Amino acid sequence: MTGRVGDPDNPRMAEVAPGSEEMVLAFLAEAADDFVSGEAISGKLGLSRAAVWKHVNALRGQGYRIEAVPARGYRLVAIPDRLGALEIGPLLNTHDLGQVLHCSAEIPSTNDRARELADAGAAHGEVVVAECQTAGRGRRGRSWSSPAGQNLYLSVILRPSLPPQRAPELTLVASVAACEACRKAGVEAGIKWPNDVLVGGLKVAGILTELSAEPDVVHWVVLGIGVNLNSGSGDFPADLRGVATSLSIERGQPVPRALFAAALLSELEQWLDLHADQGFGPIRAAWRERSVTLGREVRADGEGGEITGVAEDIDETGALLVRARGGLVRVVAGDVRLVGRVDPEGA
Amino acid sequence: MTGRVGDPDNPRMAEVAPGSEEMVLAFLAEAADDFVSGEAISGKLGLSRAAVWKHVNALRGQGYRIEAVPARGYRLVAIPDRLGALEIGPLLNTHDLGQVLHCSAEIPSTNDRARELADAGAAHGEVVVAECQTAGRGRRGRSWSSPAGQNLYLSVILRPSLPPQRAPELTLVASVAACEACRKAGVEAGIKWPNDVLVGGLKVAGILTELSAEPDVVHWVVLGIGVNLNSGSGDFPADLRGVATSLSIERGQPVPRALFAAALLSELEQWLDLHADQGFGPIRAAWRERSVTLGREVRADGEGGEITGVAEDIDETGALLVRARGGLVRVVAGDVRLVGRVDPEGA
Repeated sequence: MTGRVGDPDNPRMAEVAPGSEEMVLAFLAEAADDFVSGEAISGKLGLSRAAVWKHVNALRGQGYRIEAVPARGYRLVAIPDRLGALEIGPLLNTHDLGQVLHCSAEIPSTNDRARELADAGAAHGEVVVAECQTAGRGRRGRSWSSPAGQNLYLSVILRPSLPPQRAPELTLVASVAACEACRKAGVEAGIKWPNDVLVGGLKVAGILTELSAEPDVVHWVVLGIGVNLNSGSGDFPADLRGVATSLSIERGQPVPRALFAAALLSELEQWLDLHADQGFGPIRAAWRERSVTLGREVRADGEGGEITGVAEDIDETGALLVRARGGLVRVVAGDVRLVGRVDPEGA
Repeated sequence: MTGRVGDPDNPRMAEVAPGSEEMVLAFLAEAADDFVSGEAISGKLGLSRAAVWKHVNALRGQGYRIEAVPARGYRLVAIPDRLGALEIGPLLNTHDLGQVLHCSAEIPSTNDRARELADAGAAHGEVVVAECQTAGRGRRGRSWSSPAGQNLYLSVILRPSLPPQRAPELTLVASVAACEACRKAGVEAGIKWPNDVLVGGLKVAGILTELSAEPDVVHWVVLGIGVNLNSGSGDFPADLRGVATSLSIERGQPVPRALFAAALLSELEQWLDLHADQGFGPIRAAWRERSVTLGREVRADGEGGEITGVAEDIDETGALLVRARGGLVRVVAGDVRLVGRVDPEGA
């Protein structure tokens, strides 16, 4: 399902006009916990009262719980636990991110789909979401476990004004946003360099940044973000047990997925805006505050082979600075293993 | 036309087996100016003498001039002026580059096709060649004039072991190779930073480098190289007159295109091998020797806006160092305009 959603007054909605049903839903979602009169809806959307009633019933048939109280009107009580444009769209308060949503029940990989869309000219902020990935990918060609109906798998297309050399900064921007979204969902998350989000040493979210560029100009960046929301401990494949966790395991109650998706996009947009306005400085500070890597003994790939030492800082390009035997080593690639406790990256 | 060509003993040829006709041609091409007996060909390729004769005649029907002298055998005298795998393949002396050739009469853009192939898993060294591009691209979204039958438009897929930060080095490697191929074709070519090849101030070749990467690992690089070989001065569109030239204009005789394509791929592979073995140092030295930018007054885009000054050097990352009023400025992106003469980049 592809469509522009959100504010019905947004002139950009004309590009892919939402159906009346979607507009009724957006109207109800905007009112949040308040009732909206049938008259207000029909007046605003240019529909008959009977048509409004018909759309409300159709939405109920799709799993939306909508209260109807005489003399007060309609109120949206609950949305179904689906990741469609109808569910996420009305919850967005972004200016660009997710204003075009490409939602699928099943897809090989949201990053692959986003790359195709970007190559075909998709705009800054378009987002691909899937209920399930059949070939979900992590960093460096690893797979990303992506069962249906439990978690969040989304990819955001960006067209930043950055040289490719500065693309690693966006990875750290995304890690700060993902960490913050997890914290706002009530879980004490932290960031492992460069961009894994951990809770109590276990991985709850990962980020795969891919870009297309000329040596001096970025064509597009795709930020793929996977967050374990509602997987139970028995849902993880054997090789992820003791390595991964989910927000619901950590906080003891399920996470409404569409709400989390909208909140994540909102966080991401705010941090991206800050980065565009003020550069990497404030991102670096925010990353440091949330880091679980700094101050720890780590093992990493230095230029001359594997090194062990204390992670001291990240530099102004996002590289990790490790105090090893021979001096301070700059780590720009590969994985960092936290020494002395179970590590989500495994071997 | 797609096919593996070259040494019939190469086990990799089994992947896309060439036809017997192609193998006969490769055999003749390998012998260069020498005669090869029909007996030798039939023995080596496991064909009857009659079959060899049939293939020779079929090749003649396609425009190959093959001499047949009793008691001496066959000799390849001339190949048709086409850029197919049959024409380029037998001339190649590379180990990787062009061992798989994707040749088309007409294509929107060789870089676009190479990108698609790379995304689909094409190997290091696969090459896309077209007689004509209908949407040929230059740097930064500019168009590249690509009439049929006159010039060379090719794109090489590379899978280097480099972080994306070092990708600009490959652009300079390609410019040295293209410049050298032009020089070996008898034309006194030089390089304008970063990678235009000029003759007497006029542009004869351009390079478009594109890459797909994660922040710390390159998936692939596509090097697109366009060389004006046989365009006459009247063949250039109005906006390129006084800006572009061709090898044939400069040297006063046409360039055999397949031969030039094979020579260019050979140069490129040698310089890439040197880069892989010894790093950017020798490439930087080779670039400096061929530069028409260093020592000249230039106008360029610095970080704080346009600057004017003398181009002093390139640094160890390939960036141009310009001595401007405020000091030495590092130029990493955009165009450099040579001040005080007609400049192929135009405005």
